[in-house]
Amino acid sequence: MTKFEVTILGSSSATPAHHRYPTAQIVNYNQKFFMIDCGEGAQFQLNRYGFGYNKIDHIFISHLHGDHYLGLVGLISSMHLNGRANELTLAGPPELLEILEIQLKYSQTLLRYPLKFIPTQTDHPEVIFRNSEIEVETIILDHRIPCTGFLFRELKRPRRVIKEYIKQFNISPELIPMIKEGADYVLEDGSVLPNAVLTVDPPEPRSYAYCSDTIMNTKIVDQIRGVDLLYHEATFLHDLHQRAADTFHTTARQAGEIATMAEAKKLIIGHFSARYRDLNPHLEESQSTFANSHLAREGFTFAVGQQ
Amino acid sequence: MTKFEVTILGSSSATPAHHRYPTAQIVNYNQKFFMIDCGEGAQFQLNRYGFGYNKIDHIFISHLHGDHYLGLVGLISSMHLNGRANELTLAGPPELLEILEIQLKYSQTLLRYPLKFIPTQTDHPEVIFRNSEIEVETIILDHRIPCTGFLFRELKRPRRVIKEYIKQFNISPELIPMIKEGADYVLEDGSVLPNAVLTVDPPEPRSYAYCSDTIMNTKIVDQIRGVDLLYHEATFLHDLHQRAADTFHTTARQAGEIATMAEAKKLIIGHFSARYRDLNPHLEESQSTFANSHLAREGFTFAVGQQ
Repeated sequence: MTKFEVTILGSSSATPAHHRYPTAQIVNYNQKFFMIDCGEGAQFQLNRYGFGYNKIDHIFISHLHGDHYLGLVGLISSMHLNGRANELTLAGPPELLEILEIQLKYSQTLLRYPLKFIPTQTDHPEVIFRNSEIEVETIILDHRIPCTGFLFRELKRPRRVIKEYIKQFNISPELIPMIKEGADYVLEDGSVLPNAVLTVDPPEPRSYAYCSDTIMNTKIVDQIRGVDLLYHEATFLHDLHQRAADTFHTTARQAGEIATMAEAKKLIIGHFSARYRDLNPHLEESQSTFANSHLAREGFTFAVGQQ
Repeated sequence: MTKFEVTILGSSSATPAHHRYPTAQIVNYNQKFFMIDCGEGAQFQLNRYGFGYNKIDHIFISHLHGDHYLGLVGLISSMHLNGRANELTLAGPPELLEILEIQLKYSQTLLRYPLKFIPTQTDHPEVIFRNSEIEVETIILDHRIPCTGFLFRELKRPRRVIKEYIKQFNISPELIPMIKEGADYVLEDGSVLPNAVLTVDPPEPRSYAYCSDTIMNTKIVDQIRGVDLLYHEATFLHDLHQRAADTFHTTARQAGEIATMAEAKKLIIGHFSARYRDLNPHLEESQSTFANSHLAREGFTFAVGQQ
């Protein structure tokens, strides 16, 4: 099975505390590395957990609160100083480019590698990445400033031809793609081997949804329905649900409710307020509304679906 | 003796490596805390070494390479979120204000405390801070982009009146300031107690010079002559002196030479390139030209002069 996993680099909200770093994650899909958000110190965390800067070709920034992007200029500069040559694609709010460019200008840094910028918007979800295996779509979140999440979705894969039959019936290689798409196979004597015999179903496409920062927002449920893994912010415990609403954040209980409504298979909660040292109450609260809840913790890796 | 000491928060140049952080320091003068440079992760280091954010009322930024200021927006935001009310004074290149303001604007952050900005220039040294005890003057450095160091100098203090004599001769309190300034004291019988008998010399003013980043620059020697403590960058070992010159940096041997020329009492070298894991060769090289050399290391505190 193709590798599809998420590593947490930071689990803290706003101010770093209790050895928790601001938000950043790495999605590894088949050794292709995507970074989601890039809080201050993200490059230290990449060092710590053994991710090479230059393996990352895509960085997606959810919004322009500092705890989600302040590590970006440092990382981009370190990629430059480490001799990167391959293109880096950056997606985020349009103003992010202005923030980067002004800092590159005043430091007189002329990047040695191409930087491609994809501005995101918050009118409707849009696909910001697609290759033959996977696509990434934005999720419109509801925060104090424009903010998007990111939905990583494996594309539907072709049916798998049973290898033994290829040899047994001497199927020529040029016919394989058609059979993968559903064609039957006609033997020399004119008899037909139905596709359902020759092939098996492909694995179910897996998906990962990243939702931070946002007030509890049921509008996202349809889009993320059935995700194998959901990361949802849970800045506060539910006794502070009014404060969560006022600041456009979610409580741990609400994160579990969203996971339940969306029929997610597994939930990671994160973006914890500095006011909480012990996170077990968050976990218990989230588990009270969605049993398969887990805490985001620095350096932890979560598989997306069955591996 | 009034406390006067420097704590290293980061000793790394350009890219963080080997558990070394980008440049940042805290100068503690009599429980007044000044921050010099504020590389990425400076707020994590403040947490780690127990400095409260809100005790820092002055931040001085040498130049606009990311490894010297990228922690600033995060720290300023955390001060805001932690309820700071007292004014923060920030000094640095004029463009720094633009970099800050654009980021505060897009994150829709309206600081809860007054931020006073002092633009620095590189035409001539200027005093950017003075109170009754100490002043801070810029040092014009020679780097790829405009860059200043900072010279912390105790002001000459008044003479100290010998306490026993105050009582013995019944000297009234309102006369003390004049005696401290050098006045003699006339007894009731008209006889004169000379100031030299009544008072002792004040302690010698102490000073700390921070010089990073710069090519080896003998022009600074006169200004920093006799400093008790000199921090000087030593990005490279001397076998790479051509690379040091090309990038407007200094070698460890050259840092020692500057300390010797300036008749400094003690030298700290720092701003080490990521290419060096082991720093003992830097120390040995610097000691070969200035014996009292020391390595900047995260969390180490150096006294300025005799304490």
